[in-house]
Amino acid sequence: MPQSSPLSWVNVPVNSDFTWHNLPFGIFSDAKAGPRVGVAIGEDILDLAALRQLGFLMHLPPEVLENAVLNDLIALGKSTTLALRHTLQDWLRADKPTLQPYAPQILVSQKEAQLHLPLKIGDYTDFYSSLEHATNVGAMFRDPKNALLPNWRHLPVGYHGRASSIIVSGTPIHRPLGQTKADEAEMPDFGPSRLLDFELEMAFVVGKSTTLGQRISTAEAEDYIFGLVLFNDWSARDIQKWEYVPLGPFLGKSFASSLSPWVVMLEALEPFRSPGPVQEPAVLPYLRFDGLKNYDIQLEVAIQAQHQSPQVVCQSNFKYMYWNMCQQLAHHSVNGCNFNVGDLCASGTISGPQAHQYGSMLELTWRGTKPIPMPDGTERRFIQDYDTVIMKGFAEKDGLRVGFGEVRGQILPSQPA
Amino acid sequence: MPQSSPLSWVNVPVNSDFTWHNLPFGIFSDAKAGPRVGVAIGEDILDLAALRQLGFLMHLPPEVLENAVLNDLIALGKSTTLALRHTLQDWLRADKPTLQPYAPQILVSQKEAQLHLPLKIGDYTDFYSSLEHATNVGAMFRDPKNALLPNWRHLPVGYHGRASSIIVSGTPIHRPLGQTKADEAEMPDFGPSRLLDFELEMAFVVGKSTTLGQRISTAEAEDYIFGLVLFNDWSARDIQKWEYVPLGPFLGKSFASSLSPWVVMLEALEPFRSPGPVQEPAVLPYLRFDGLKNYDIQLEVAIQAQHQSPQVVCQSNFKYMYWNMCQQLAHHSVNGCNFNVGDLCASGTISGPQAHQYGSMLELTWRGTKPIPMPDGTERRFIQDYDTVIMKGFAEKDGLRVGFGEVRGQILPSQPA
Repeated sequence: MPQSSPLSWVNVPVNSDFTWHNLPFGIFSDAKAGPRVGVAIGEDILDLAALRQLGFLMHLPPEVLENAVLNDLIALGKSTTLALRHTLQDWLRADKPTLQPYAPQILVSQKEAQLHLPLKIGDYTDFYSSLEHATNVGAMFRDPKNALLPNWRHLPVGYHGRASSIIVSGTPIHRPLGQTKADEAEMPDFGPSRLLDFELEMAFVVGKSTTLGQRISTAEAEDYIFGLVLFNDWSARDIQKWEYVPLGPFLGKSFASSLSPWVVMLEALEPFRSPGPVQEPAVLPYLRFDGLKNYDIQLEVAIQAQHQSPQVVCQSNFKYMYWNMCQQLAHHSVNGCNFNVGDLCASGTISGPQAHQYGSMLELTWRGTKPIPMPDGTERRFIQDYDTVIMKGFAEKDGLRVGFGEVRGQILPSQPA
Repeated sequence: MPQSSPLSWVNVPVNSDFTWHNLPFGIFSDAKAGPRVGVAIGEDILDLAALRQLGFLMHLPPEVLENAVLNDLIALGKSTTLALRHTLQDWLRADKPTLQPYAPQILVSQKEAQLHLPLKIGDYTDFYSSLEHATNVGAMFRDPKNALLPNWRHLPVGYHGRASSIIVSGTPIHRPLGQTKADEAEMPDFGPSRLLDFELEMAFVVGKSTTLGQRISTAEAEDYIFGLVLFNDWSARDIQKWEYVPLGPFLGKSFASSLSPWVVMLEALEPFRSPGPVQEPAVLPYLRFDGLKNYDIQLEVAIQAQHQSPQVVCQSNFKYMYWNMCQQLAHHSVNGCNFNVGDLCASGTISGPQAHQYGSMLELTWRGTKPIPMPDGTERRFIQDYDTVIMKGFAEKDGLRVGFGEVRGQILPSQPA
């Protein structure tokens, strides 16, 4: 499919993330109306609520499209949402301009729209599924010769995170206050975190509910995954370090986590399936899987200091994940834990094997010992006030591109205690 | 207030948990109608939705009372819910039988009603706030001479738990499957948990939302606590042991947590305020508090084997908590983490200083080394299939009793993999 022949009557610039192949779902509002369901295409949003009002998509309940979250639409089931995706692809084809006369009513420029958190997230889980990340952290904080903990290669380690503080891209974040203790200090101290970090992650959105006691096999898992987003699991390393033994990360994470606004359906990523790392030793039967369950998605993180241009600090890829999403879901449900539509499961920091592929400042600067030079001559060990962290991701193959846009967030100074 | 002169025209048996002083809120249904808001009194439920239909409580929106959860009622704010409490107390007084003629329409026998999970729980946090519990666990698994970790006396350690699998009292639970590894084994194994335990806890319900970045001081905290429930934080010790380093408990907990159905308002517990343990060393300023923030609530756990009578195995008290609820909330929000009405914060296992006051089988049997004899001649190290665990709690002083009823749950065998 050569890029020279446009696939859609909607203008899609070269290298747009939001191609005719993609059609991710999100929630937007503008001067015309409040939050509602839209689909990104090129630099526009196709307004599904407006389409419904014009007499299209009449099989969908209007309240599902005139909605401040995607949950009710997703809950209609994959047969419905996939059919919707195919209908929209059909209507947007360059050679089938059924909708083109309605363009002024149904297309909204992304520049003129506000994007909202697209989901009501019931439960949020964060995994720890990158071998390189777990190895780096283990080498820094424990023993470089035994960096991985004994359980790591046997199960996808994960923990429950805070759902209430998940925010949409663009929402600024005040540097968190908290308790920290310097290694040499006798007593803890209180104040703004000094070691504020990002974690480059992707997250999948659960698209089908289960009942308590129900298990999801690796073979069934894809049916339970609606789509994916970019995810910045902001981390206050100094708060986390002091609090996390023995029950895990808590306030070092729960001040905010940032989500990209467009949910890319799993099916849009079909052409980008990729083999994952070989799992050795062999996993237990409930974690075995057939076929390609990783995805080749190029990821990038940039830091933009105030009034400066962004500095790319990391280039990684989702394909590096040791544990894939199907294994994560099979493990998460093996004890009978139930899921609701809109639950979020994040990957954990996605680090690759090379040093420029590390997905956090902790690893990129190796605990601050290798600062990163910035365009303005300063350097970064961790994130400073007024820095904006920008994560981007896209998959590309044979002229086909499916992107996630970006998740960005600026760090503002702490609010006075 | 002598028990001989009844306070209410509704019959309240001696030693009832649901006295005129208490009036806890819950969600019930019966043959007449679906889930709605009720208040427990004696052996009955006062049907608030029916009261509204009869022309009482007209200041409350009907959808708040004809509702499957308490969240919308609680979200009206404490001034409204406290005024409602006082109105109901007034209407239920023995000397003011305004409502008595309507008794057949507004009173439902608890025996004929089904009780439901009373809340839509957005986020659930579990603390670890009993000094005795943390000391016991530390002594068993780490070093008896340095049982407490360095952070424990400086902050209320906590972690995020799974909200979706919180169930109401009476819901049976299948023994979870999961990965475990025996100390001497080289590889992990998969199967039903062999070390299934309860944890005796109480939990508070957040009654007022905050915005991201907002902190709650210890002085403000009570305004954010709607009420309390009993909570059984079921724990699969063998699954937990293998999975929990470094990111904390996950599948060892997320298979189920059980909640008592009646939410006792914090104000109903006013007469039972109690001093807490002395905190030494002194806590950081944001954790300091004035006044009595602990509550003298007697707690009891019984195990009932199938077709046997219950065997009390633990008698503890909520007053033993080292970290109080106001400190928990101040700590939880100090980084700006936001709360929604209906969020749940559990105490962690409530162990007292004496051996019969330990709030888990892990501690009561000291890792299984001191089994508990049962009435049928068997013994228990952990919970066996078909055992029912029953937790009760009440406060009593000067003839005044405010109780929580019970939270019970039966363990059924694992479902086949």
